[in-house]
Amino acid sequence: MTIAVEAEAGLASGGGVMRFPADRPLRLDSGAVLAPLEIAYETYGELNADKSNAILVCHALTGDQYAASPHPTTGKPGWWHKVIGPGLPLDPSRFFIIASNVIGGCMGSTGPASINPETNQPYGLAFPMITIADMVRAQAMLVEALGVETLFAVVGGSMGGMHVQQWAADYPERMANAVCIAAAPRHSAQNIAFHEVGRQAIMADPDWRGGAYLTLGVRPDKGLAVARMAAHITYLSEPALQRKFGRELQRDGLSWGFDADFQVESYLRHQGSTFVDRFDANSYLYITRALDYFDLAASYGGVLAGAFRNARHVRFCVLSFSSDWLYPTAESRDIVRALNAAGCRTSFVEIETDKGHDAFFLDEPLLDSALRGFINSAAQARGLS
Amino acid sequence: MTIAVEAEAGLASGGGVMRFPADRPLRLDSGAVLAPLEIAYETYGELNADKSNAILVCHALTGDQYAASPHPTTGKPGWWHKVIGPGLPLDPSRFFIIASNVIGGCMGSTGPASINPETNQPYGLAFPMITIADMVRAQAMLVEALGVETLFAVVGGSMGGMHVQQWAADYPERMANAVCIAAAPRHSAQNIAFHEVGRQAIMADPDWRGGAYLTLGVRPDKGLAVARMAAHITYLSEPALQRKFGRELQRDGLSWGFDADFQVESYLRHQGSTFVDRFDANSYLYITRALDYFDLAASYGGVLAGAFRNARHVRFCVLSFSSDWLYPTAESRDIVRALNAAGCRTSFVEIETDKGHDAFFLDEPLLDSALRGFINSAAQARGLS
Repeated sequence: MTIAVEAEAGLASGGGVMRFPADRPLRLDSGAVLAPLEIAYETYGELNADKSNAILVCHALTGDQYAASPHPTTGKPGWWHKVIGPGLPLDPSRFFIIASNVIGGCMGSTGPASINPETNQPYGLAFPMITIADMVRAQAMLVEALGVETLFAVVGGSMGGMHVQQWAADYPERMANAVCIAAAPRHSAQNIAFHEVGRQAIMADPDWRGGAYLTLGVRPDKGLAVARMAAHITYLSEPALQRKFGRELQRDGLSWGFDADFQVESYLRHQGSTFVDRFDANSYLYITRALDYFDLAASYGGVLAGAFRNARHVRFCVLSFSSDWLYPTAESRDIVRALNAAGCRTSFVEIETDKGHDAFFLDEPLLDSALRGFINSAAQARGLS
Repeated sequence: MTIAVEAEAGLASGGGVMRFPADRPLRLDSGAVLAPLEIAYETYGELNADKSNAILVCHALTGDQYAASPHPTTGKPGWWHKVIGPGLPLDPSRFFIIASNVIGGCMGSTGPASINPETNQPYGLAFPMITIADMVRAQAMLVEALGVETLFAVVGGSMGGMHVQQWAADYPERMANAVCIAAAPRHSAQNIAFHEVGRQAIMADPDWRGGAYLTLGVRPDKGLAVARMAAHITYLSEPALQRKFGRELQRDGLSWGFDADFQVESYLRHQGSTFVDRFDANSYLYITRALDYFDLAASYGGVLAGAFRNARHVRFCVLSFSSDWLYPTAESRDIVRALNAAGCRTSFVEIETDKGHDAFFLDEPLLDSALRGFINSAAQARGLS
């Protein structure tokens, strides 16, 4: 099938923006349609002759397509540069690795900061509500447009792990392997509560202007920074915070004021203030909402195994971190139980670490070896070198 | 010793405002002095003839002196009405129970919303920084002014438990028993981090006006509400949130918008919006700062047992809740270890409950029985009926 797409020149890594014209709309779970649609993506490595070596890498809430190439705003290495690269578990010399920005995002894919064709202004709150399944539907359009019929693997952590599960539910015939890291099959009440704090912080900022801040030339940076600070605590573990910062002071002695006395305060403020340079507040609202709406079993009569009933041929690897309190191991076990009940081949490892949820970004030898082992064994099974 | 104090007419429960004139200043840890000083308090029951039945009840971050009498703003029962009352562990027919608002608070004790005598305007940020030890020093002035030389017990949960420890360090000769519930001997990095999010939320609100909002006739209600929402999550446990709310919706079906779709969102918004009716934003800044500064061992060369070296005659009861992740049981165990090392008589109970930190406010039969048992045995030892 040939579809009308146009790829812009990408970075050295490959990639660009895939454009789907108005007659190729994305139908959303809400009933709305999104058109025209743009999906920004990066690729690493080359698609092999029989198109069997493609891996889709799915990003977390505030991630993007720059998985292994420098971020254009911050200049920092890609968010998964410890996993994707020569000699690493996802090696571009062996695989064609695709990373795309989710719809609703703010790094080039159509989102609330994009121009609404009906008004020629940024969408703002006129952007339709999106779901994890909508994001995956857009990813599937991209993968198809790139000429890949069957993905060797879909891999992701945190929200990316939600995408992986949704792929197995909606497009099992288009994937051979799945790696779901530090995720959950649904958002818990506590997950929703933390996201709601973040959303309220943004919407409490008068510069949010009912979501129309871009049109009005302002930005709710303070609210977005507070949202990020609250969320960031949930990405770390209490022991890691204690080890890293404890009660260490910024200076000799207390300030007896509201300056950042403690290093952990300064660290959090830095997390907030740098985040606003690279992220859009409305995208934060839409993506957190998509996560809160995520409850994979709900579409299958409450039985999670139902989501995986057509994925028996897919090999799954589920990984969790022992100190992750955002998506605790118990939730990965729920996924594993459902996969087993559906008759899927599943390996599961709980990685012992005190680094919390964000361990999947960090130097974590056990993650490296688990991922490497699974990918190598899966590649062998598919006859890939 | 007679000091010049003046007690206003109190509620039916007894109490009022104790005024310490300018020549009786409170010397603060920061080096500043606070004068004149007012301490708002409530009392329940009567002081017996030999003044041996007084219990000081210490409140948590957002608590106040209305421990067992209706809150004047909200009309709700006192925050510890399940513990203080006829037939309850702290029975006013047996004990003279004193509950005072901490300095820095906003329910009548001198705090940042009080009038600064130097400017005849609310203090705002001109209010001096305070510590847990400063709060306890003020409590000790009140207790003395009420004619009580030795307290039968000092009792408190959360921040109130920090007060209890500080009393044992600073005024051991003025107390016979101590009950420390759901507390810690120091604020951890994660504790500080959550407080910092709250402070940043308040200070990000343009109506905070550098702390001068009262003078300018505005209030940073939105920022304070966000601070309360973030903090409130830490007072509950993940299982309790799941049991209470799960993913239950407010209405049939999703709103596909940013209204409160989930009951947990609505609950949190309610917590935020009602809090601002009864609390002052600057008080929230000052009291959270006092908590963050709390590290009892620091004044004793880092050895917590040193704080309790003169409290060998005090009987301690330390209680923690198994699902409390704000001040986890491990931190109560640190207190217990130090008490044991100092040679203090200590009983310790970890109460199994899924209700999280706020269990000490709630119907918790094991808390009731632990408290009742300790108080009764201590009363017997002191010859109180």
